[in-house]
Amino acid sequence: MTPRHEAQHDREQAKRDAVLDAALDAFVQHGFVGASTDLLAARAAVSKQTLYKVFGDKRGVFSALVQRACDAVVDPFAALTSTMESAESGEVAVRSLARQFTQALANPHIQRLRRLVIAEAPRFPELAQMYWESGFGRTIVSLAACLEVLDRRALLTVPDPERAAHHLAGLLLWIPSNRAMFDPAAAVMAGDELDLVVEDGVRVFTRAYAPVD
Amino acid sequence: MTPRHEAQHDREQAKRDAVLDAALDAFVQHGFVGASTDLLAARAAVSKQTLYKVFGDKRGVFSALVQRACDAVVDPFAALTSTMESAESGEVAVRSLARQFTQALANPHIQRLRRLVIAEAPRFPELAQMYWESGFGRTIVSLAACLEVLDRRALLTVPDPERAAHHLAGLLLWIPSNRAMFDPAAAVMAGDELDLVVEDGVRVFTRAYAPVD
Repeated sequence: MTPRHEAQHDREQAKRDAVLDAALDAFVQHGFVGASTDLLAARAAVSKQTLYKVFGDKRGVFSALVQRACDAVVDPFAALTSTMESAESGEVAVRSLARQFTQALANPHIQRLRRLVIAEAPRFPELAQMYWESGFGRTIVSLAACLEVLDRRALLTVPDPERAAHHLAGLLLWIPSNRAMFDPAAAVMAGDELDLVVEDGVRVFTRAYAPVD
Repeated sequence: MTPRHEAQHDREQAKRDAVLDAALDAFVQHGFVGASTDLLAARAAVSKQTLYKVFGDKRGVFSALVQRACDAVVDPFAALTSTMESAESGEVAVRSLARQFTQALANPHIQRLRRLVIAEAPRFPELAQMYWESGFGRTIVSLAACLEVLDRRALLTVPDPERAAHHLAGLLLWIPSNRAMFDPAAAVMAGDELDLVVEDGVRVFTRAYAPVD
C-alpha cells in the first residue's frame, strides 16, 4: 500500500473498531434484541447507511465482534514455548503461563463479549461455536502445547495435556470469570486480588501435576 | 392445612412450576426482551390475567425463576458432612462431594437459568446477585465446610477452605459449564463423559491438597 492508502486503511480500521466497541456496549446494556440499529449508529456516531454498508446488518455487527476477538487470540502463548524450554522449574514455567493467560482473558472487553455470546448462543449457535473453537479452544490448545514441553522435560507429569490445560484454566478463571458474569457492577478482578488467585492456582496445579517419583 | 386445602396448594404449586418452566424456555429462546408476556402466557397455557396475578409482571416471572433455583439449593451437602466424618480417605470423601456437586449443577435446567442470569445481569443486577449469593455462594460455603472436616481429620491439608472449594468447583465444572454455555446444541454433559471429568478432577484436587508430610 502507498503511505496515503495505508493512512486511509488505518483510519478505516480505527473507525471500524470504534463502531464495534460502541456496539458491544449497546448490546450488553440493552440485549441484542433491545439494541436497535438506530441506537448502534447513534452510539458509534455514524450513519445507519455506514453501519449497513460496513457490516450488512445487526447480525453482521455481532459476527464482526466475535471475529475480532478470535483474531486477537493470535497464539498468545507462542512466545512462551521458548520460556517453557528454558524455565528452571515447573512452578516458574506454570507461573509465566498463568500470568499470560489471565492477562489475556480477565479483561473487561473479553468478559463483556463472553456475556453477550452466552446470552445469544441459542439464537446464534454458529457465532458461539466460532468463539468456542477459534477463541477459547485455541488458547486451550496453546496451553496444552506448553504443558507438553514441561512433561517432556520431566518438570511436570502431564498424561493428558488438553485436560490439564482445562484444569489450569478452571483453577485460574473460575473465580474471576464467575464474578464478572454474576456481579457486573464489580470491576473485573485485577491487581493484588487477581495475583492471589493466580498464585494459588499455580501452587495447586504444580502440586497436582508434580513429577511422579 | 386440611387435605382439601393441601390438594389445592399442590395444584397451585404444580401450575406455578409449569408456568416457570415454560417461561424459562421462552426467555432462553427469545431473550428476556424478545419474550412478550403474550408469549409467556401462551406457552404456559394460562391467561395473561393469571400471569399478572401470580407474578406481577415479566420481571416478577424472572425473579420467581431465580428464587426457585436458589430455594432448591437447600444445603445439598448437609447430608455429606457425616460422610466426611466417616470416609476412610481424602479421595473417597472428595469423590462423594464431587458427584453430589456435579449432579446438582450439571443439569440442563440449571444451565439454562445460568445462561439467562448471565444475559440479563446488566439489566437485573439484583437477581444476578441473588443467584450468586443464595445459589452459587451457598454451595461454595457448604463445600468449604466439608473440606474443613477433611482438613481436621488430616485426610487433606486445606489452609483456605473457601478458596479450595472454588478450586474443586473449577476443576469439576469448567469444562461442562463452558460447553453448555457455548455449544447449546450439545446435550449437557452426563454419563461416562461427565464421570471422566469428575474422576480427573477428584484425582487432581486430592493430589494438590494431599496432607503435607
